[in-house]
Amino acid sequence: MPRKIESIREKMLKSTREQISRTYANEEYALMQAINAYNELSRSYNLVYERLSEWYGLYYPEIKAGSQKLLADMVKTLNTRDTISKESLTALFSDEQRAASVYEKATSSMGRAMSGRERDALMKFADASNSMNETLEALEAYIKAAANEIMPNATYITDEKIAAELLSRAGSMERLATMPASTVQLLGAEKALFKHIKFGSKPPKYGVLFKLPAISNGKRSARGKIARLYATKVAIALKADYFSKRFIAEKLKSDIEKGIARINSKPDVAKNKRHSDRDRHHKQ
Amino acid sequence: MPRKIESIREKMLKSTREQISRTYANEEYALMQAINAYNELSRSYNLVYERLSEWYGLYYPEIKAGSQKLLADMVKTLNTRDTISKESLTALFSDEQRAASVYEKATSSMGRAMSGRERDALMKFADASNSMNETLEALEAYIKAAANEIMPNATYITDEKIAAELLSRAGSMERLATMPASTVQLLGAEKALFKHIKFGSKPPKYGVLFKLPAISNGKRSARGKIARLYATKVAIALKADYFSKRFIAEKLKSDIEKGIARINSKPDVAKNKRHSDRDRHHKQ
Repeated sequence: MPRKIESIREKMLKSTREQISRTYANEEYALMQAINAYNELSRSYNLVYERLSEWYGLYYPEIKAGSQKLLADMVKTLNTRDTISKESLTALFSDEQRAASVYEKATSSMGRAMSGRERDALMKFADASNSMNETLEALEAYIKAAANEIMPNATYITDEKIAAELLSRAGSMERLATMPASTVQLLGAEKALFKHIKFGSKPPKYGVLFKLPAISNGKRSARGKIARLYATKVAIALKADYFSKRFIAEKLKSDIEKGIARINSKPDVAKNKRHSDRDRHHKQ
Repeated sequence: MPRKIESIREKMLKSTREQISRTYANEEYALMQAINAYNELSRSYNLVYERLSEWYGLYYPEIKAGSQKLLADMVKTLNTRDTISKESLTALFSDEQRAASVYEKATSSMGRAMSGRERDALMKFADASNSMNETLEALEAYIKAAANEIMPNATYITDEKIAAELLSRAGSMERLATMPASTVQLLGAEKALFKHIKFGSKPPKYGVLFKLPAISNGKRSARGKIARLYATKVAIALKADYFSKRFIAEKLKSDIEKGIARINSKPDVAKNKRHSDRDRHHKQ
């Protein structure tokens, strides 16, 4: 008898495990972790870059690096003043003229001389910068692949990172796909929304969607309208991604383009209209 | 003639370069960069750790790692479920029993199965975590060495990181060494100080010095007094570090210990005294 109970217990445990496993089986959870990791790490990476260029500036104040990756590589190549070689600089820049000019500046630099132990610390710091850069690239590649698979329609009309961030704000594909367009429009603007509700400040017009170039580069007066247009189409795209699994994004994208052209072609009457609305309201 | 002017110009350029070089010749500038790098990077490292344990929790929710380093190593060792080996786990924990228990949990985990591309992203993320850890160790080693050389007295009575942070807040050894004790006491509490001056909130009692265990673990009512005591001795130590270059820290440390014993031995009369002061003030 006890053996039978034992075997039932085993079976039930197994089935519960499988149920939990099934709930978390979707890749969307990994995608959410990846986009959050990406955003946090890229903020840290920018801090590290600023610190690295300030620190390195003590030794070679005359030499500016154009990019984060180049700066870290320069730190590793320049090293102490007596070990600088023209060859390694040429290999780094693959441009003999630039290498010669940097060599000239570096060997006659008026920055302080670097001691051995300073070099060790600075090199390690440059290593961390490069490792963060590589990790960001790997995360980005994963986000691209996963977003295009999980939410192809939403990704097509926005981009991988925006789509993944919307997902992460919503918490699951199911919740995101069943949200009305107005909620999608304000995902990521929760703080401003509650400030509006509690203290009566201006209501927000967009959250995560502000990262779309059409909105951030758009005319101020048209941004809210364009965000509304995008949110409507993104909400439709998400329903297709989650329920019907059909690819309808090309049609949605051309709708958006037409809509933006229409919004931009209208003269700026928005302000006057709102004024007259308010006047009417006062008269009542 | 022009050749003579040219040679004068060369000489003057060289002398100016040397002057600038001399101004920045002190290692204190590198130390300030290092402590700031350390503080920023350790904040980022904590974020990465939280994210890594959340992400990894999708696959092995049952297994907890005790430390940041161990978590990253476990992520790299556990990998996907079919590649887990008892040997690699034993090598990681150097404790056969623990390895066996983790193996048991990992192979029967109810977390989601990891796809190849998820693994790649997660591994890279664990790499970044490990690289940040190594860099923090290198920075710490450098900060220890440099702080003990540049400010041996101040380092002896506080610790390397607190001494370096005081230096970084002040901007140079010269400025730090000429500060009165009251300013040293509030370095790092600038925000609270200006809030006090502008809005009349409570004045701060300590800034960077709060990191001293004697203050952060001390009785609430004694903290301000202990901070004042430390600040006085640190100010003296800094003058010795910068001007006389003598090592007087042992005497200062024993003074501090005696002072703390005296402060702690007194009963909590501070509050009552303040009350009676206020009463007297009211009567006037």
